[in-house]
Amino acid sequence: MSDLTFSIKGESKNATKFEAAARNFKIIIDEPPALGGADHGPNPVEYLLASYAGCLNVMGHLLATELGFNLEKLEIEVTGDINPDRLFGKSFDERAGFKGINVALKPYADATPEQLQTWIQAVESRCPVNDNLNNLTPTRIALLN
Amino acid sequence: MSDLTFSIKGESKNATKFEAAARNFKIIIDEPPALGGADHGPNPVEYLLASYAGCLNVMGHLLATELGFNLEKLEIEVTGDINPDRLFGKSFDERAGFKGINVALKPYADATPEQLQTWIQAVESRCPVNDNLNNLTPTRIALLN
Repeated sequence: MSDLTFSIKGESKNATKFEAAARNFKIIIDEPPALGGADHGPNPVEYLLASYAGCLNVMGHLLATELGFNLEKLEIEVTGDINPDRLFGKSFDERAGFKGINVALKPYADATPEQLQTWIQAVESRCPVNDNLNNLTPTRIALLN
Repeated sequence: MSDLTFSIKGESKNATKFEAAARNFKIIIDEPPALGGADHGPNPVEYLLASYAGCLNVMGHLLATELGFNLEKLEIEVTGDINPDRLFGKSFDERAGFKGINVALKPYADATPEQLQTWIQAVESRCPVNDNLNNLTPTRIALLN
């Protein structure tokens, strides 16, 4: 299959708030007061965690179908820790982003434990966001005039 | 400073739709019809791109303040290509996620080109999502009963 291109574009509304358009959808991003914003939406790293959960959900259902069991519901919790020192320029000892991300998946499925092990390994291998987190994803930033 | 913990949790509404809660905010994730969904929201990888844009926006404004210039507005476009073969299990030759991510940043600022170069380098060094994309981010998935 040929590549699929995804894109979003938007603009700052203030120092923390960003409104992005993804096709016909508007995504509002802000920071809570403790991080300098007015809390008009989830913050960037919360969207990153939600992106990961959404991707695991799609892949979880796709793989359940491939493996021949019924996945009635999937509950997902995604959590990660960030040390804000680098972000705020206080210290450069630690990385800027999540040190790691922990996922708790609770599938409601008529599957054996062995099927679920096969399932989760396939989900991890084929989930785009799982790949972009666990492996290097080169980014290139162009400054426009 | 001590670590900050971020988390989201939610559940599948169907094979492609996921509703996540990030604190008091609801995030609706779905796929367009071409990817098997009913298009009730942006898809997971669009949220990933938006997360990156939102993070660059926050860091862009923080760094402009530190560097002593006024950033009136920031326009951001984020784009990436995914080959869907691995996702759909057709081939495992290519990676699952974005091969790379391209950002176009258009700052409206009273800054010199040299200041903007310093600015963008600092933004890249200190932006959490930029770090999580460009470097390895270990994830751990636990299956709950």
